[in-house]
Amino acid sequence: MGTLIRGGTIVTASDIQRADVLIEGEQVVAIAADIPVQGHQVVEAKGRYVFPGGVDPHTHLDMPFGGTVTADDFRTGTMAAAFGGTTTVIDFVLHAKGDTLKNSLHVWHAKAEGKAAIDYAFHVMIGDLRDEVMAEIPRLVEEEGVTSFKLFMAYKNNLQVDDETLFRALRMAGQAGALVQVHAENGDVIDVLVKEALANGQTEPKYHALTRPPEAEGEATVRAIHLAEMAKAPLYVVHVTCAQAADAISDARKRGLAVYGETCPQYLVCDNSDYERPDFAGAKYVMSPPLREKSNQEVLWNKLKNAELQGFGSDQCSFNLKGQKELGRDDFSRIPNGAPTIEDRMGILYHYGVQEGRIGLNRFVALTATNNAKLFGLFPRKGTIAIGSDADIVIWDPTVERTLSAATHHMNVDNNIFEGMTVRGKAEKVFVRGKMVIDGEKFVGTAGYGHFVPCAKFSQVDL
Amino acid sequence: MGTLIRGGTIVTASDIQRADVLIEGEQVVAIAADIPVQGHQVVEAKGRYVFPGGVDPHTHLDMPFGGTVTADDFRTGTMAAAFGGTTTVIDFVLHAKGDTLKNSLHVWHAKAEGKAAIDYAFHVMIGDLRDEVMAEIPRLVEEEGVTSFKLFMAYKNNLQVDDETLFRALRMAGQAGALVQVHAENGDVIDVLVKEALANGQTEPKYHALTRPPEAEGEATVRAIHLAEMAKAPLYVVHVTCAQAADAISDARKRGLAVYGETCPQYLVCDNSDYERPDFAGAKYVMSPPLREKSNQEVLWNKLKNAELQGFGSDQCSFNLKGQKELGRDDFSRIPNGAPTIEDRMGILYHYGVQEGRIGLNRFVALTATNNAKLFGLFPRKGTIAIGSDADIVIWDPTVERTLSAATHHMNVDNNIFEGMTVRGKAEKVFVRGKMVIDGEKFVGTAGYGHFVPCAKFSQVDL
Amino acid sequence: MGTLIRGGTIVTASDIQRADVLIEGEQVVAIAADIPVQGHQVVEAKGRYVFPGGVDPHTHLDMPFGGTVTADDFRTGTMAAAFGGTTTVIDFVLHAKGDTLKNSLHVWHAKAEGKAAIDYAFHVMIGDLRDEVMAEIPRLVEEEGVTSFKLFMAYKNNLQVDDETLFRALRMAGQAGALVQVHAENGDVIDVLVKEALANGQTEPKYHALTRPPEAEGEATVRAIHLAEMAKAPLYVVHVTCAQAADAISDARKRGLAVYGETCPQYLVCDNSDYERPDFAGAKYVMSPPLREKSNQEVLWNKLKNAELQGFGSDQCSFNLKGQKELGRDDFSRIPNGAPTIEDRMGILYHYGVQEGRIGLNRFVALTATNNAKLFGLFPRKGTIAIGSDADIVIWDPTVERTLSAATHHMNVDNNIFEGMTVRGKAEKVFVRGKMVIDGEKFVGTAGYGHFVPCAKFSQVDL
Amino acid sequence: MGTLIRGGTIVTASDIQRADVLIEGEQVVAIAADIPVQGHQVVEAKGRYVFPGGVDPHTHLDMPFGGTVTADDFRTGTMAAAFGGTTTVIDFVLHAKGDTLKNSLHVWHAKAEGKAAIDYAFHVMIGDLRDEVMAEIPRLVEEEGVTSFKLFMAYKNNLQVDDETLFRALRMAGQAGALVQVHAENGDVIDVLVKEALANGQTEPKYHALTRPPEAEGEATVRAIHLAEMAKAPLYVVHVTCAQAADAISDARKRGLAVYGETCPQYLVCDNSDYERPDFAGAKYVMSPPLREKSNQEVLWNKLKNAELQGFGSDQCSFNLKGQKELGRDDFSRIPNGAPTIEDRMGILYHYGVQEGRIGLNRFVALTATNNAKLFGLFPRKGTIAIGSDADIVIWDPTVERTLSAATHHMNVDNNIFEGMTVRGKAEKVFVRGKMVIDGEKFVGTAGYGHFVPCAKFSQVDL
Repeated sequence: MGTLIRGGTIVTASDIQRADVLIEGEQVVAIAADIPVQGHQVVEAKGRYVFPGGVDPHTHLDMPFGGTVTADDFRTGTMAAAFGGTTTVIDFVLHAKGDTLKNSLHVWHAKAEGKAAIDYAFHVMIGDLRDEVMAEIPRLVEEEGVTSFKLFMAYKNNLQVDDETLFRALRMAGQAGALVQVHAENGDVIDVLVKEALANGQTEPKYHALTRPPEAEGEATVRAIHLAEMAKAPLYVVHVTCAQAADAISDARKRGLAVYGETCPQYLVCDNSDYERPDFAGAKYVMSPPLREKSNQEVLWNKLKNAELQGFGSDQCSFNLKGQKELGRDDFSRIPNGAPTIEDRMGILYHYGVQEGRIGLNRFVALTATNNAKLFGLFPRKGTIAIGSDADIVIWDPTVERTLSAATHHMNVDNNIFEGMTVRGKAEKVFVRGKMVIDGEKFVGTAGYGHFVPCAKFSQVDL
Repeated sequence: MGTLIRGGTIVTASDIQRADVLIEGEQVVAIAADIPVQGHQVVEAKGRYVFPGGVDPHTHLDMPFGGTVTADDFRTGTMAAAFGGTTTVIDFVLHAKGDTLKNSLHVWHAKAEGKAAIDYAFHVMIGDLRDEVMAEIPRLVEEEGVTSFKLFMAYKNNLQVDDETLFRALRMAGQAGALVQVHAENGDVIDVLVKEALANGQTEPKYHALTRPPEAEGEATVRAIHLAEMAKAPLYVVHVTCAQAADAISDARKRGLAVYGETCPQYLVCDNSDYERPDFAGAKYVMSPPLREKSNQEVLWNKLKNAELQGFGSDQCSFNLKGQKELGRDDFSRIPNGAPTIEDRMGILYHYGVQEGRIGLNRFVALTATNNAKLFGLFPRKGTIAIGSDADIVIWDPTVERTLSAATHHMNVDNNIFEGMTVRGKAEKVFVRGKMVIDGEKFVGTAGYGHFVPCAKFSQVDL
Repeated sequence: MGTLIRGGTIVTASDIQRADVLIEGEQVVAIAADIPVQGHQVVEAKGRYVFPGGVDPHTHLDMPFGGTVTADDFRTGTMAAAFGGTTTVIDFVLHAKGDTLKNSLHVWHAKAEGKAAIDYAFHVMIGDLRDEVMAEIPRLVEEEGVTSFKLFMAYKNNLQVDDETLFRALRMAGQAGALVQVHAENGDVIDVLVKEALANGQTEPKYHALTRPPEAEGEATVRAIHLAEMAKAPLYVVHVTCAQAADAISDARKRGLAVYGETCPQYLVCDNSDYERPDFAGAKYVMSPPLREKSNQEVLWNKLKNAELQGFGSDQCSFNLKGQKELGRDDFSRIPNGAPTIEDRMGILYHYGVQEGRIGLNRFVALTATNNAKLFGLFPRKGTIAIGSDADIVIWDPTVERTLSAATHHMNVDNNIFEGMTVRGKAEKVFVRGKMVIDGEKFVGTAGYGHFVPCAKFSQVDL
Repeated sequence: MGTLIRGGTIVTASDIQRADVLIEGEQVVAIAADIPVQGHQVVEAKGRYVFPGGVDPHTHLDMPFGGTVTADDFRTGTMAAAFGGTTTVIDFVLHAKGDTLKNSLHVWHAKAEGKAAIDYAFHVMIGDLRDEVMAEIPRLVEEEGVTSFKLFMAYKNNLQVDDETLFRALRMAGQAGALVQVHAENGDVIDVLVKEALANGQTEPKYHALTRPPEAEGEATVRAIHLAEMAKAPLYVVHVTCAQAADAISDARKRGLAVYGETCPQYLVCDNSDYERPDFAGAKYVMSPPLREKSNQEVLWNKLKNAELQGFGSDQCSFNLKGQKELGRDDFSRIPNGAPTIEDRMGILYHYGVQEGRIGLNRFVALTATNNAKLFGLFPRKGTIAIGSDADIVIWDPTVERTLSAATHHMNVDNNIFEGMTVRGKAEKVFVRGKMVIDGEKFVGTAGYGHFVPCAKFSQVDL
């Protein structure tokens, strides 16, 4: 009556074992050398890796941005995620100015319910941290299963917070058992540079990158670390793109601070030359922080190899070129920021990382699943294959070769920033809480099957 | 027919799960929610942790040193190790000048065979790296299951090698799939300071520390890292004691180098004030590198917490105060270097680390077992609890409180540097390849049961 | 007809020579081995040093602060400065919100004219950098001889500027040939900590230091450096107090940036234990940034020795204990910030620096005079003894021993933070533009003799 | 009866003044606004800079090397130096194995006497630091005016010393008032790489650079600094070529250590692409350390600008291509190391530094003269223009443009590594102790006019 995954190689963040896995109900109940069939439904996994389902700690689904809304909602976004091997997303609730956190959270619950094909949890992006909102932080932690809060050091006059707010939030979060995430770019500097560029008639996509220099990311990262240190609070820096920021995180960890950094697939394989593509095609790559000089890629790979960065998210935030990215045809600052990456997050890391020898299999699992689950209080329910854990499992065929493309991807968007890259390795079957949702090229799950999963409090993480 | 460990909490380097473990023969064959008894021998583990047996990557058993021999040989040393939860030691073969590596290795095989109560592997400490010895390195890797080689940057006119030798060994090892370990202290500086101290009549144990300043360790660590970088080879720095050396390793890892550092329990809980103990009692603490200023302890704990150090060895090297340490009563430089630590390595880390909140359980397992097994090619046979792995298992009672003492320890030596420390947590039962060797206060194994375990080649390690 | 200083040892920032100096009119016209008397007025300097008159780059005279006004104005302040060997001050014009820079400058001219006993120049502290004020910067540089502008990263809701303002000011200044000075403390963090302390009833002077941690200074220093780097502008960090900030400046200079740091005598010889003095006496030491842990003193001395800090100012800002400091008897945040240091700046550096062997004579002159004159465009008119330079000269008796005290000092204030320190070395005679203003214990100058000296543009400085 | 230099702009390490200079006998006796002619011999300097004569702290004249002898001896070398504006050289005495230091010094005195056109002092390169040689160090300091001793960390089996020797020398020198200089490259690594390259048939000049990687220089520099720190002694690192080494020096100075670094003109304007020149022309550039990747040039300029490097020497060591460099036509390791740079040291720094805006005039003088004189105990006799100092003076025409070439230079060698570079600025007249030795294109001095100048002990240097 269970499901028996037979003959595969199970990989966790620390182990690699040739063993069978037995799922009963929604959980893994046995891992053993040779589990008798005994009426179980058998799934053959010989020659395949059996990975924990991916936990994507950074997605923006159904999110309003600059007068439009991301192309993928929870239905299309989570389905595409599942095709890529991801079985849980932690999506960012957007807290609008004037609103309560709780209400914003409920808006997001409504977006996800009935649509998500895989499980989901929430971070909250705080847009307006007035005193009563500050007071909600411990309540969300205790009552709502939301234990991570993102603040923006960029997007002046919009989401950007000042240091007082960030410092107070860090202290509050530290006491409440929550983890503060920062988007670390110096928004003041960027705002000056953007206005100046536009005033000079520099409107093409490449000016997006030129007005957001890596030093602005390095500065903000160092500042956030200093504030966290003074607040005696842990810190998670989202989407680290460059040596300046990544080295700042290494320096903090060297000093024993509880500082964690995340990077994303796009920063590993794309670079700022992509902004030069003709016919406004550079707009596809407009995201914040921007793509950097190619030399940063090796820096980031080294950081992943040596565990100097811990999180790995897609920063999925898809917009169609047609009708959406086009809003900024005459003004790069109006191009909606973001790219569709939720589907290929694991595929990119597998190919350019594991397949090409830059990282090992355990690190692959740590980055795609385990670390993210641990950092955000979803572990051990999510992020591993272990007795009692949710049976979120990917059967990964390491031999398949395929070419990534908007023509074939499952995201609801007309472009793919990895277009044309040929990669080896693919999620062949994907299970969410024991139920198969992907079977080869077919989605066999159901929109609405996905549950909300509450996050536990942050506590010391052994990464 | 198997052994069923029931109801415990299994901890690996990445997971914590409430599950049963089934051992058949020498291996783990199943981990499951509820394994039927079915005639298996049941071992109750409720309320206990089920850890992988410890892998101690740094022991000196039956080793000649300065005209005497360590107090513990493979019989007493491995039995004591087992009492502490360690099920594999990687002992250092001493390669004597003029000898071949192979012959030295055979001498060590002879010391261990028939005596070891637990499994063992070997590193070789190269004493004399002439060309024909260099040529033996790949042969030991390919044929003898020895894949790690230690070189000394200290002990002038004895084991110390010059940079040419170290550099050539790094390149040879890098190509052969071996890992070079260094004892990183600048022996030239130390030699000058020691001679000068003795010439000044400064003969007490405390001068051992004063003539081996932390800067001498910092310098040698930086140098070894530079040489490894130029040789494009990985590097493992044994017994890191101070901020200078540990920070150098962090800096190397920050730059993406395959550099690993090890520390030992004594550097976490003892300090250089111990050398001031009256009546020559400071001699117990004479080891190299020496104990440091207390402020280094927090640095080292932070490095363990943030995975900036990866290995954790005992550096077991026991000498009796009476008759051995006493050789240096009038000259600290003649005090045999080393201390008995093989038995309490895990207990110290558990109490001061896990119990007192400095590190988590996964990190505890990583440090005591998994990392060491991975770094030296014993994984996944050793260092974890997984299907197909050797059933080297410790049932750890986290509630027992006890006081460490030479009066009660099982090492064959008249002193204990942790004397009088009261710690919580203790290995209750210990299995080596499925066979129980420790049952409470009783050794129930057999001298000679322990096997030699060949080490696989070094390859990229996800630590 | 001239003044002939005979037989002294002339010290400049690079030279030490036994020579006579001839002054004609307001300038030095000859330096020679043996200048004939020929009717000149002879001043004997045998056994004395002949130093360039000090240039104090950081004074606050006649400045409103927190509802009161500094105890010393241009009359008493510059007279006291002269007693200490200082012949030029660069005072900070306070630009009030709503005012123009030009008008604020004229207010300051009015305060100084007719009162100053020595020469003076001005920096402007910008209080409100709206667009029309930004546009005044190049005008002040070109027309008013003001080429340095100070911005505050602390004093939230008062002088504090945001990063946009600082960044824009840096770019504007860089283009205009001006130098931006920053008070580098993170005012947001401090504001939170101060409010919290007061809310907790922590009102004593020591909480002034506890609510302004060194990390807040380190953070702001790093941030200002990053902003200057992105703005491609030079930067001068005023009153550096701690390792965190000083090391940040060293790191910037190591990378080739035009970043300069200043420290002050109080940070070299006082420390945060002074805040513990009974009966509100700790209030004397309330200044921002606060006095630090004593260990920072050695760091700062090392930085001065190795030219890792370049400027040396008094940060004179005197308030009486009675009637002024007392305003904060029940609330440390209302204690007027600052201390009387203009008179003893050179005496402290001479005794604790030169006399006690921490720095050499050339460095002493560089720090007290030459560097400050070069950084702020007063060189070579001020800051050296050279042909054509203003004859601002101190005849310094290195043998006199004296005890610093409010009872004997010449500042118009009832306290002295160096009270009771016995120092060797004293300005015996002081000349400003050839006119003697100090003769032993007597002030022989005139209030109003001092001129305004326009500052030249900043250009690359060889420090 | 004196010499009156009239109307020039006198530049010292800290000052720039329009003034006349009067020389009487061998010294400067007056600097004044307008010195009456009164029978003095007048030298017009209007529109010219009047610099202190250069002090070249690093020359190898008449030195045996690899079976040949440098092409320039004290006669040709010092004459060429004078043409370039240098009036004092500090040449390296080569201490041969088995010899005493004193005897080696006398050999060098014999080489210089009767030949030198300008003044000279000596460092000693210690070739063999046995105990009786160690004991000579304080004797040379006290009795022979030799206060700097160079040790080699490279040239294995030849000049290279081990760390014990270097450490002991540092301590001895520190106590004796001497300054240790190091050639900082890891000779052990280089020796392995050279042998390997030759074994692989890699014999062309470019392999000289490839077998001496910058990491080998970085490592040795860090090591020397650590040893000096433990020895509590000052350290001077000769010929710094790359970021790795220069940054290590910055880090040491940041920590307050008395560590100084020197670079040379060739590392500022030549790079490792010069080794690729056809027809063995790359051999001209064979020197140790080798020329580096071009990116290091900007690093070194920044270090000079910010005073992070202090010394500036030519490392003159000339060999003819024909008959000398050719010795290594089939084996790069046999190419005599060194290049002819004594004549153009100041011209290169003036043009690429001052003229192109990378450094200022004061820094130019500090680097070419003052710092070197201070560091090695020749100041204030040498290295400045001051009353009582030797009248070593260069009248520099900043307007002349000329092209450097072996065809026109005055060194006795058939090649010039700056061949074809067109520079602005030239020594027009040069005085040594008051006597003119260069007058335009003519040498008007005398071989043998130059004196030996004893060096004073090292003491704290304000650089």
